[in-house]
Amino acid sequence: MKILDKVNTPQDVKQLSVDEMNKLAEEIREAIINRVNTIGGHLGPDLGIVEATIAMHYVFNSPKDKFIFDISHQCYPHKILTGRKQGFTNPLEHPEISGYSNPKESAHDHFVIGHTSTSVTLATGMAKARDLKGEKSNIIALIGDGSLSGGEAFEGFNNAAVLNSNIIIIVNDNEMSIAENQGGLYKNLALLRETNGTAENNIFTAMGFDYYYVEEGNNVEKLIETLNEVKDIQHPVVVHIHTLKGKGYKPAEEDKETYHWQLPGFLNKSENASQAVESYNSITTDYILQKQKEGMPIVSITPATPGATEYSKDYRKSLGKHFTDVGIAEQHAVGYASGIAKNGGKAVLGVLSSFVQRAYDQLSQDLALNNSPATILVYWGGISNADMTHLQTFDIPLISNIPNMVYLAPANKEEYLAMLDWSVKQNDYSTAIRVPFGPLVSTGIKDNTDYSILNKFKVEEKGEKIAIIGVGDFLEPAKEVKLEIKNRLNINSTLINPRFLTGVDTELLDSLKKDHEIVITLENGVLDGGFGEKIARYFGPSNMKVLNYGGKKEFTDRVPLDELYKRYRLKKELITEDVAKIID
Amino acid sequence: MKILDKVNTPQDVKQLSVDEMNKLAEEIREAIINRVNTIGGHLGPDLGIVEATIAMHYVFNSPKDKFIFDISHQCYPHKILTGRKQGFTNPLEHPEISGYSNPKESAHDHFVIGHTSTSVTLATGMAKARDLKGEKSNIIALIGDGSLSGGEAFEGFNNAAVLNSNIIIIVNDNEMSIAENQGGLYKNLALLRETNGTAENNIFTAMGFDYYYVEEGNNVEKLIETLNEVKDIQHPVVVHIHTLKGKGYKPAEEDKETYHWQLPGFLNKSENASQAVESYNSITTDYILQKQKEGMPIVSITPATPGATEYSKDYRKSLGKHFTDVGIAEQHAVGYASGIAKNGGKAVLGVLSSFVQRAYDQLSQDLALNNSPATILVYWGGISNADMTHLQTFDIPLISNIPNMVYLAPANKEEYLAMLDWSVKQNDYSTAIRVPFGPLVSTGIKDNTDYSILNKFKVEEKGEKIAIIGVGDFLEPAKEVKLEIKNRLNINSTLINPRFLTGVDTELLDSLKKDHEIVITLENGVLDGGFGEKIARYFGPSNMKVLNYGGKKEFTDRVPLDELYKRYRLKKELITEDVAKIID
Repeated sequence: MKILDKVNTPQDVKQLSVDEMNKLAEEIREAIINRVNTIGGHLGPDLGIVEATIAMHYVFNSPKDKFIFDISHQCYPHKILTGRKQGFTNPLEHPEISGYSNPKESAHDHFVIGHTSTSVTLATGMAKARDLKGEKSNIIALIGDGSLSGGEAFEGFNNAAVLNSNIIIIVNDNEMSIAENQGGLYKNLALLRETNGTAENNIFTAMGFDYYYVEEGNNVEKLIETLNEVKDIQHPVVVHIHTLKGKGYKPAEEDKETYHWQLPGFLNKSENASQAVESYNSITTDYILQKQKEGMPIVSITPATPGATEYSKDYRKSLGKHFTDVGIAEQHAVGYASGIAKNGGKAVLGVLSSFVQRAYDQLSQDLALNNSPATILVYWGGISNADMTHLQTFDIPLISNIPNMVYLAPANKEEYLAMLDWSVKQNDYSTAIRVPFGPLVSTGIKDNTDYSILNKFKVEEKGEKIAIIGVGDFLEPAKEVKLEIKNRLNINSTLINPRFLTGVDTELLDSLKKDHEIVITLENGVLDGGFGEKIARYFGPSNMKVLNYGGKKEFTDRVPLDELYKRYRLKKELITEDVAKIID
Repeated sequence: MKILDKVNTPQDVKQLSVDEMNKLAEEIREAIINRVNTIGGHLGPDLGIVEATIAMHYVFNSPKDKFIFDISHQCYPHKILTGRKQGFTNPLEHPEISGYSNPKESAHDHFVIGHTSTSVTLATGMAKARDLKGEKSNIIALIGDGSLSGGEAFEGFNNAAVLNSNIIIIVNDNEMSIAENQGGLYKNLALLRETNGTAENNIFTAMGFDYYYVEEGNNVEKLIETLNEVKDIQHPVVVHIHTLKGKGYKPAEEDKETYHWQLPGFLNKSENASQAVESYNSITTDYILQKQKEGMPIVSITPATPGATEYSKDYRKSLGKHFTDVGIAEQHAVGYASGIAKNGGKAVLGVLSSFVQRAYDQLSQDLALNNSPATILVYWGGISNADMTHLQTFDIPLISNIPNMVYLAPANKEEYLAMLDWSVKQNDYSTAIRVPFGPLVSTGIKDNTDYSILNKFKVEEKGEKIAIIGVGDFLEPAKEVKLEIKNRLNINSTLINPRFLTGVDTELLDSLKKDHEIVITLENGVLDGGFGEKIARYFGPSNMKVLNYGGKKEFTDRVPLDELYKRYRLKKELITEDVAKIID
């Protein structure tokens, strides 16, 4: 019989011997690997934190004592030990348990978390409320070393240190972010590891924390020993544990970056890399490599997500000093790009739509206010079936309402290349480009547009009565809507590709007033604050009717895309139905 | 003859003896005090940094060597030494020189800066571009100790440390933020001061920097000595200088918080505090104090701007542990509020509209995604004559497009109190309230609205044909527009007070379709992504005409309010003119 079979709650963990806990650790690893192989997810971070999680539940009393997992991508062992093991052992139940902490799943989770570097801040707030209510409990934040570089983590440390009461921060040091750790801070972590935590120069004690070091961070016994020492402590303490990312699965131990996250079926994946297929990502990296070869002072920047943007190890190596991974530090990434641009360099920052949110103020103040001619490539933007923590639907409202910014939405390969080339070469505008997420669309014809002429929409096909504006990668669905309207209502609509998200083509819009009654907008993002509303506002005082299609302002959680499209009436049949109702 | 009379460029500074530089320092102080007394501005920070600025220009060669001032509120001496002294010596020319760095004023300025904690990041980017271009120069960031707590500063330090080339960070340690410094970090700065920079435990060396300490940070000679040592250094270095904030003006030396910034005429200000006048700020602090007395686990939070929100020293003292100044750390402030709220405390964060921008992701992920029932009070929101770095016009698009958030806009005292009380007591929603900036408006009648019924607009007066929606403090101007339309067009308009910024009252809007032709919206903020566009979108498919009034998407720089109102047609006469054009 497996140990895991009799472990259903943290209380059950407390009954186990060290041998049993070690056996339990192996069983948890097996369950994690099985889940990830079935539905995909985070692998290395979870394999590395198994023993620490067991020790935490052995020593502390969750949920009275509160665990807050940074990003919470490493909470699989915690979920397994808190009544949710079926999400890991039974493939049919895998999808019911999310890959992130969620209070709706369990009283042992306290926040929905998915972005980095927030745990210490949230824990500090919880500790403050505990103290004001006169309660006693341990508040424990678990944060990986990669997350330490994010500004909110530092802000949290700075204030946690002066709490004057219990807060325990476990720093899970596996010597990795998603890719390698970046920055001066990590030299100090290395020094602390080398000296078994005894170095006098210690960033944690410098910030005012008591400090404990556990070299064997995958040894349950040692972890329990130290956690027992800090339990119920009445001042802020850091427990720095040295763990092995990917532990127990050899490929993940050896290639920590690749196995940080895996798609389903990774256990049977062929060793041979699949043939390279041209994509928006590959043409991006090809372009940047080409500019480097031509001697341009270009810098390709990632905030710790080179994999997501397909900045491969080869690519990074080829670029050498022309590549910077700033670590998890989106704010710095944008300001750094601005600094490069202002001093004559060519900065190209690739950042995911969900994470660019961290840098709104920098996009506004560090970048756009200064008209710094850097290029921000926004990846993955669009309505998706992602977890509610990782939605990519808010970048249009976020970026397009910042003065001076030029936010471009290419509809195909040729436009994307032309925009990228224009943006990199010009010196007047702070530019962002929404890199299409889907398959490469090609017109086969080079785009010679001069994008310095701002807010000039392109009329793809001139028609009458109805104008359909398809934004970026929604130009293709807009074409389908046009066809459907032609078939059902026998109207030959005008098709417009706006390309600019940051302004409207007033001349074109005015011209539509002559022979059009309805304007339809389609955008791959939330409607609130987005592109379509600008069109609705522009036509507000006129007789033109406007129909805006896009996402609803809501946090959706792993809802299938087709269901979302139906909910948002983003279907050619539904749109045509709406049009039929209001057309004269 | 004054030394300042012969100093017009940094080159002139290099010709001076130490004695002359000391005399120059006194003259600069006099000029600063005169300017602030005439047009207001930052006082203490500039008085404290005079010698350091002289030493910087003596040692380095600006603009080839580049100075980047954090926030740039302490760049007055720099401006005086770089050809802009008339902005300090000649009252008539004061307004022509801004209080922040600005490349349009001088080649010695490299960025428009006004928000905190950005200098090291921007400098790192500049250094990177310099290296790629194969140039040689010193890149120098000057950052005050208060700004160190901001996450972007830490992210910048972390990456500057691994530059492998020249970057010089001068940390101006005057033992103060605007108010006292907050957080564990400052214990280490104190230790470094106490040990004359020799303590082994050193946050700067822990992050990988070379380190120099100058105890006499207001001694030109000592500063020059150290700056000469680090000039042209080929690795990242921190120069930690200990200065006296407010130096040379006794009241500012003694009360550093009060004299951080001053209004015009401070030299002749009466010692007696003016009689307390009831304001939105005073009723806020009265309310919070009352709740504390009643035993509520309430926490009043400021991110280092207690003065701006009028959280006086008495108020802070009375609240005791119920008050937290988190330092300059807006991201942490929001996440901390969320943590408090999730653990049963009542968090009320007061933050300026311009600075809440730093925390978009935390408002979305840490707060709203978790429906944490914290209260965010947004101060100073609205179109203003502020510097382009400190505009307060973007908070409606920023906050109102986040799912789950409830953003409220009170139009008068009674609504504000009702909203505040509702928000603090409820446990279901993450709430923000836009505290009106102007004078207190009172209806004299208690507001008994249940704000749990979301997005319910209030019809102030029922009319016909035209409906005017006045958002928050723009309800008063909306009333004037109503009167003007009555007088000029003889139409009795409907007047609506929406109160909610985060959704539309579909029932009410639908009802307007029966007997209204035009809906006018007025909001005190930028139109793009704002409230009015939601109304325009809602009526898009209908025959209703919509006119949105608010700010244009632009960075305005100290433009008089009346000029902006004219530009935006935010005048009752102009709005009535627009209406007359489109009404049937």
